Amino acid sequence: MKSNITAIKNPQIENVKGFHSNGVHCGLKNEKKLDLGVVYSDTPADTIALYTSNKFQAAPLKVCQKHLLDNIAQLLVVNTKHANACTGEEGINNAELICEEAANLFNVKQIDVIPMSTGVIGEQLPMKKITEGLKLLKPVINEKNDCNFAKAIMTTDTYFKIYGVKVKINDIEYSIIGTCKGAGMISPNMATMLCFVFTDAVISKELLKIAFINSINKSFNAITVDGDMSTNDTAIIFANGHAENKKIDSSGSKEYTDFCDALDEVTLNLAKSVVKDGEGATKLIEISVHNAKTTNDAKLICTAIANSNLVKTAFFGEDPNWGRIICAIGFSGSIYNPKDVSLSIEDIAVYNNGEMQNHNAESLKKAFQKKEIKIKVDLNIGDKNWTMWTCDLSYDYIKINASYTT
Amino acid sequence: MKSNITAIKNPQIENVKGFHSNGVHCGLKNEKKLDLGVVYSDTPADTIALYTSNKFQAAPLKVCQKHLLDNIAQLLVVNTKHANACTGEEGINNAELICEEAANLFNVKQIDVIPMSTGVIGEQLPMKKITEGLKLLKPVINEKNDCNFAKAIMTTDTYFKIYGVKVKINDIEYSIIGTCKGAGMISPNMATMLCFVFTDAVISKELLKIAFINSINKSFNAITVDGDMSTNDTAIIFANGHAENKKIDSSGSKEYTDFCDALDEVTLNLAKSVVKDGEGATKLIEISVHNAKTTNDAKLICTAIANSNLVKTAFFGEDPNWGRIICAIGFSGSIYNPKDVSLSIEDIAVYNNGEMQNHNAESLKKAFQKKEIKIKVDLNIGDKNWTMWTCDLSYDYIKINASYTT
Repeated sequence: MKSNITAIKNPQIENVKGFHSNGVHCGLKNEKKLDLGVVYSDTPADTIALYTSNKFQAAPLKVCQKHLLDNIAQLLVVNTKHANACTGEEGINNAELICEEAANLFNVKQIDVIPMSTGVIGEQLPMKKITEGLKLLKPVINEKNDCNFAKAIMTTDTYFKIYGVKVKINDIEYSIIGTCKGAGMISPNMATMLCFVFTDAVISKELLKIAFINSINKSFNAITVDGDMSTNDTAIIFANGHAENKKIDSSGSKEYTDFCDALDEVTLNLAKSVVKDGEGATKLIEISVHNAKTTNDAKLICTAIANSNLVKTAFFGEDPNWGRIICAIGFSGSIYNPKDVSLSIEDIAVYNNGEMQNHNAESLKKAFQKKEIKIKVDLNIGDKNWTMWTCDLSYDYIKINASYTT
Repeated sequence: MKSNITAIKNPQIENVKGFHSNGVHCGLKNEKKLDLGVVYSDTPADTIALYTSNKFQAAPLKVCQKHLLDNIAQLLVVNTKHANACTGEEGINNAELICEEAANLFNVKQIDVIPMSTGVIGEQLPMKKITEGLKLLKPVINEKNDCNFAKAIMTTDTYFKIYGVKVKINDIEYSIIGTCKGAGMISPNMATMLCFVFTDAVISKELLKIAFINSINKSFNAITVDGDMSTNDTAIIFANGHAENKKIDSSGSKEYTDFCDALDEVTLNLAKSVVKDGEGATKLIEISVHNAKTTNDAKLICTAIANSNLVKTAFFGEDPNWGRIICAIGFSGSIYNPKDVSLSIEDIAVYNNGEMQNHNAESLKKAFQKKEIKIKVDLNIGDKNWTMWTCDLSYDYIKINASYTT
């Protein structure tokens, strides 16, 4: 990391000037767990959202798209337990009702409220509980709390996820804080990934958009737990400009590069934490493909390896069978010459220019026993690279996902 | 099935006139299990082979392609335990040496021998054991035996797989017998699927090829256990013409339609048996997509559902969470309008024209508890259909695939 970008210790959304957040229990989850959260900005913020490409987009995503035609928002409301997906017109009406209720309570425009949901597909929201919850949230929105919002958006995440940096730009400092929830399910289809990033930096809306798209592509679009993309996946960045730095408005400037680096630092940390906390995961596996003809060819191979159940179970079993990785490269659909392909695992070359290599079996076994493992593929056919992260496939994945909805 | 096509009870390769087979233990597997098999035809047979599209094709596949330039073969040699894949020039030389040795012993042309291997990737063949095994096989090739060839090609299949039919054509009868091995692994990458079909029907080489390609497409190319395609997958049909029926040489004839139907019956039965015996499988799931715009759109949805770990674990857990199936349709990449989509499970409509349906929860739960389950998706946008078969994802899949190579 650059010297003017530093990680914030014990970050909270309130590190970003002008943002306030809290979470409450309103009865969606059992055991008094937090299940409804809001983030409020003192002033309307420039807001960019990226959505799942799943064709069955959940109702809140449709409302969000409508409310963000002007790319302005001031209030974010998130509930867990119910995804409000496959819920038809009633689902859309409910998402709008939440916005209306929240707008009245927090005194913001209804169109400046963003509703988000995560949980079971195919159930209508328990509206009474949610509106009661919003009434509980209003009076405590400015109260100091221990990352209640990050906790309130969790489903079966085993820990809450928040990461932030501050950036020094001349004599002014701005912050970028992100929080997210990952793939986990008790009931079905809680595989929603939600990521919210907040910054007080002053930056042009166009550059904010480009920086965010690029950053999410290299982070949340470069991770996989099981290859299934949910109906609710969304990433949103809110920029309220309260840091009062000189506006970042040139894509060639050092200030913009710094902003991108800082944002990447936040999104990549969050994305990796989602994989580490993937359902049943015991290992974080980094797959990098080098010297591909096109970026897409590199991505195809990353994806084939990252989603291969055979590769993932081998890592869980700490079984050094590199042949499964070669096999996945083989069916990836990528363009390359098998005779040029090299493969190394934790820098141990097992396959070089199309020929298997003598290697120390004991060292390779030890490499497979690590908690974080790097796989490197070299195609030797071009100059494009890509990196993805995945986790292993364990008994606990089956346990978590085979459990009854009832 | 048509009245002139009947399943053969306790089929064996010898039901097909002019074919002989056997299997021996030559020391590749432990515990005296059969590990080397041959099939011999009294005369050279027309032979069509279809191979994996994995770019890292194993050495025997390369030799097979060379030997089948004339589409003629007389002897098939298959070893288990070692896949002879990623083994470079030495691997190809070894596959040719097996052909040379077998050709001398069985008095056939070297170019008429087909070598096949299945097992661990990245290990050279123990040639001495295999050549000794061939010497054991020669004197017993005409001996009556209990499907020793089908047993000898097994890896971690829990039962051997053979299926056959006889077809009455005017007053003459011909047979089609198929045997195969499925995905299973103790050591890594034994995920090879091998399928061998034998017939004594007299049929033109061109029609044999078309019939076989179509048949494999609808059967072995329509099943998935874990979505990984191995380096060794191969399907071969041998036709020696010993039945002396009037040559089937018109694609419009009833005789050709009957041949196709009989062949489909054999390959589909074998393919389904591979899924049923998939690693850790407890259920056979049939996915049919109806009224798609193109066959490819139907296939995309079949594949997305069939390979979804979330769908597969739900079936293992008998958890009636249909939302995961809708979710897989959503990320399949297929073309359709979400508002037109319908989904039923064992004829219970859960989603109809884009709206979730009230259904009897108890009935749906019971449907998920069946051993064989049919999922039907209707896209209501065209007239193309496709069907695929998959299995559930269980603890045993992890157990089988996470085990040590050592």
